[in-house]
Amino acid sequence: MERNYSSSENGRDGRVVCVTSGGTTVPLEQRCIRYIDNFSSGHRGATSTEYFLKAGYAVVFLYRRGTYQPYCRSLPEDPLLECFEVTSESNITVHPSHAKAVKEAVSEHRAAVIQGTLLKLPFTTIFEYLQILQLIALSMKSYGPRAVFYLAAAVSDFYVPWESMAVHKIQSSSGPMDMRLAQVPKMLSVLRKVWAPMAFYISFKLETDTKILLEKADMALKKYNMHMVIANELLTRKDEVIAVLKSGRITVRRDKTQATTDVEDPLVKLIVDRHSAYISSES
Amino acid sequence: MERNYSSSENGRDGRVVCVTSGGTTVPLEQRCIRYIDNFSSGHRGATSTEYFLKAGYAVVFLYRRGTYQPYCRSLPEDPLLECFEVTSESNITVHPSHAKAVKEAVSEHRAAVIQGTLLKLPFTTIFEYLQILQLIALSMKSYGPRAVFYLAAAVSDFYVPWESMAVHKIQSSSGPMDMRLAQVPKMLSVLRKVWAPMAFYISFKLETDTKILLEKADMALKKYNMHMVIANELLTRKDEVIAVLKSGRITVRRDKTQATTDVEDPLVKLIVDRHSAYISSES
Repeated sequence: MERNYSSSENGRDGRVVCVTSGGTTVPLEQRCIRYIDNFSSGHRGATSTEYFLKAGYAVVFLYRRGTYQPYCRSLPEDPLLECFEVTSESNITVHPSHAKAVKEAVSEHRAAVIQGTLLKLPFTTIFEYLQILQLIALSMKSYGPRAVFYLAAAVSDFYVPWESMAVHKIQSSSGPMDMRLAQVPKMLSVLRKVWAPMAFYISFKLETDTKILLEKADMALKKYNMHMVIANELLTRKDEVIAVLKSGRITVRRDKTQATTDVEDPLVKLIVDRHSAYISSES
Repeated sequence: MERNYSSSENGRDGRVVCVTSGGTTVPLEQRCIRYIDNFSSGHRGATSTEYFLKAGYAVVFLYRRGTYQPYCRSLPEDPLLECFEVTSESNITVHPSHAKAVKEAVSEHRAAVIQGTLLKLPFTTIFEYLQILQLIALSMKSYGPRAVFYLAAAVSDFYVPWESMAVHKIQSSSGPMDMRLAQVPKMLSVLRKVWAPMAFYISFKLETDTKILLEKADMALKKYNMHMVIANELLTRKDEVIAVLKSGRITVRRDKTQATTDVEDPLVKLIVDRHSAYISSES
């Protein structure tokens, strides 16, 4: 993977960010039919990836299969079937109403992949997620403070340990089902301290209860020694987030005077500024 | 919805099949972040839909968002980004390697939608699934024995009743999580007896343990008074299924001498034959 991240290929002094996106799953059976899933559309990760690329970063996009992809946010749910029509024996045409969105998606996405500034790696289960994250981190370690981890994925807190997992499909005939889920070991500590200790770290807290959100963000900042924790409230997260830093809290808002703006635009700008300061301070 | 199913619009004496496809989810929290999901790619439902359309049936395709769609099985995971390229300022072109698959997907899908023989309705949770299924069944009731229910969706057996559901995101700080899941009421009985009692019914059993598979298929045939239960074993289900009927068992195999055949081809043929006999016997 190193080849893609050489400073000559990156636009901005060899900076690289690993953006994690979407939710992980936890199997409930060894031959898995049922699993617990964490809801996340991947919108935050996909949008942020676009702004990081624009800011000149190389991006490793570690995403849950089936979630939002960079440059594809304005496409309908099933773009191939909804955007195209067959106009003659040999021609497939884009509907005029979707032409702009389709062209942007195809061209900007392809440009990033061809330039070597966007590497996309999919996962489904938490086990895949953690293993690929470790590989990425070990590859990015050599970038020192120029590496960023932007951990927007919704990672499961609970799982069923393999040895206590049912081998076959759990049967439904015998009344209610009782499950005991164990806590997932907090690998964030290992990532932070061992896998890539010099990198710049941003993690996310999503809660539906505003009261405990900032409290938990403060705790995560200290416990995992993050450089920034982004506090999201489920219902307002596309308009506003709070960046929690050691030096205080910064509210980041979408520019609502314009319809097509994203909160990720000012958020990534803030991160790039702080990351620049971090690189200076470390070198 | 009735409009789409008038016999003048259907190719084959006003027959209509409701194909359910993909797995349902069960929320674990009222403001849902975590849920339990049943694995199902939707491959069986999407493939069968193509063969039912070919056999002249109108199809109501009740599918889980994000699962396989009819005519799109041979496309890559992310068709828009993988199949197309921008060749000039104004042109988007299909890569020659994907041209056939893309053209078939777009044209055959569109033809079915425009002819009014394919209606696609998406669901995510088990609550959406059951509510839409009821609406479809009540609309299809007037078709009497010409209506078929082909219930290939993987429906959750367990759920968390709303009143015992956590309002906010379950916190992970307090050790392991214990969950008690209740059994989902067996709505198949209500569908069979009340919503559309004259229809022809095919349900599916999927197990990873071959020993109990046929036993469970036999039980389902009797308990829910199905006309046919299709027994699937997880690992061999794309090559072979066993159709369990009151008159006995029929093994249905894919024609392995040809690479591109589907087990759904002979399976749908068998169903169409039995359905024809059923219509004759009822009229």
